[in-house]
Amino acid sequence: MNGRGIVYLVGAGPGDPRLITVLGRDCLRRAEVVVYDRLISDALLAEAPPEAERIFVGKAAGEHSCPQEEINALLLHHARAGRIVVRLKGGDPFVFGRGAEEALACAEAGVAWEVVPGVSSPVAVPARAGIPVTYRELAAGFAVVTGHCAEGDRQDWSVLARVETLVILMGLTRLPEIAAALLFHGRGANTPVAVIAQGTLPGEQVVVATLGTIAGDVARAGLRAPATIVVGEVVRLRERLRTAGSALDDLAQPDLEDLPHVLSFVG
Amino acid sequence: MNGRGIVYLVGAGPGDPRLITVLGRDCLRRAEVVVYDRLISDALLAEAPPEAERIFVGKAAGEHSCPQEEINALLLHHARAGRIVVRLKGGDPFVFGRGAEEALACAEAGVAWEVVPGVSSPVAVPARAGIPVTYRELAAGFAVVTGHCAEGDRQDWSVLARVETLVILMGLTRLPEIAAALLFHGRGANTPVAVIAQGTLPGEQVVVATLGTIAGDVARAGLRAPATIVVGEVVRLRERLRTAGSALDDLAQPDLEDLPHVLSFVG
Repeated sequence: MNGRGIVYLVGAGPGDPRLITVLGRDCLRRAEVVVYDRLISDALLAEAPPEAERIFVGKAAGEHSCPQEEINALLLHHARAGRIVVRLKGGDPFVFGRGAEEALACAEAGVAWEVVPGVSSPVAVPARAGIPVTYRELAAGFAVVTGHCAEGDRQDWSVLARVETLVILMGLTRLPEIAAALLFHGRGANTPVAVIAQGTLPGEQVVVATLGTIAGDVARAGLRAPATIVVGEVVRLRERLRTAGSALDDLAQPDLEDLPHVLSFVG
Repeated sequence: MNGRGIVYLVGAGPGDPRLITVLGRDCLRRAEVVVYDRLISDALLAEAPPEAERIFVGKAAGEHSCPQEEINALLLHHARAGRIVVRLKGGDPFVFGRGAEEALACAEAGVAWEVVPGVSSPVAVPARAGIPVTYRELAAGFAVVTGHCAEGDRQDWSVLARVETLVILMGLTRLPEIAAALLFHGRGANTPVAVIAQGTLPGEQVVVATLGTIAGDVARAGLRAPATIVVGEVVRLRERLRTAGSALDDLAQPDLEDLPHVLSFVG
């Protein structure tokens, strides 16, 4: 085995390509092979050298994604051939998405690997939509779960119903069942809920309702996956944080034009 | 009011200065005023222009930190004077640490603000220590809480005892009480626990034990705050992820010397 090969598991962040870390971008700029998922932005892929091999392993519309064993084998193959491999994953590599399985595959095969954490969607997507997951007196903690079928079925909703702020990823198609489960386990029907699609991106869409009404409102709004669901009193802060901010929309900020503005709070 | 002023609430990440986001660093490079806490690295402060005013508002040893009202007033004052203010906070600005209160102070005062999410310690610190907070079949979710006095007292430990992966920030001095509360509410004494001090930094220290023994082991090891506590079966993965990795310590990697290596898994 060529000793030079290594796999960097790099978090791409929640969507906005400027939310990758400096270290992650540095890795990408040295990559010889980039193995990436759906939802990775072209802007990030463009950071890798032109001659780097780019391998898409995500799920195209209507097709199955590359089986995990094949992805693992691909990473090992290129690292063993002595290449610098960047495995670019949405959000943080170790928050769902099987990043840890890829790390373990490397470790067990004796292939060098490192993890470069990323900005994680369950915190960043609500934040950019004006919802802090923690707030004094409202939430001294938060929980993050997946609502995705196989793992969603494992969730103990009786516990999750009692968490101050609950963030659910990959739960959009099962939102009616999730809301029903939380209501069944005693969460109040008036609990505020936000569903955010295209989070941190220019096409961001946010629907705010209550646990009792959210499923219908989201269906009517026609939101599409991936989406982030936030359940808890902190959702109410969005109105207070945004209302005041929106009043500033007409402010002239000529000197700031080239400053990184992504949020909708200010023009 | 000068329309140009703005407050950027920027997450500095978990410690390693290379884990700031590209967007966060861009903000810092344009800052006219940087308002920062304890634990912000000199390397990050050096990213701001030399002429930028740097204002420390953290807690020095044995002293009280700047009251929150004073920090809010400071941010408003400089933004109203038309300055680009970067409020640089450890981790993510909206995960504890009162970032949302600062945003609300801006919003209510009609001052423009934006949040630039950061890599959050509760995910990144364990990750860099070889512990993924989620893992198929072990944890389909995680919860993050503060163990800090006032808010720690608010926690419902009967709920938290049932969460698959529980990450506790600011809980080191109260570790004996926290462990006791989790045990009291039925979490098994053999549940693996890791406590990580100086996470993501060269001086990182990790103690791994069980819920029954962790308080004593950490006291003997003399870990100092800030520390990240991880409770759950995922802690066991560290051994599998690291053991294999450490076997690579002697690998010659001449071409990689200037690549960003921070992890202990390889050379």
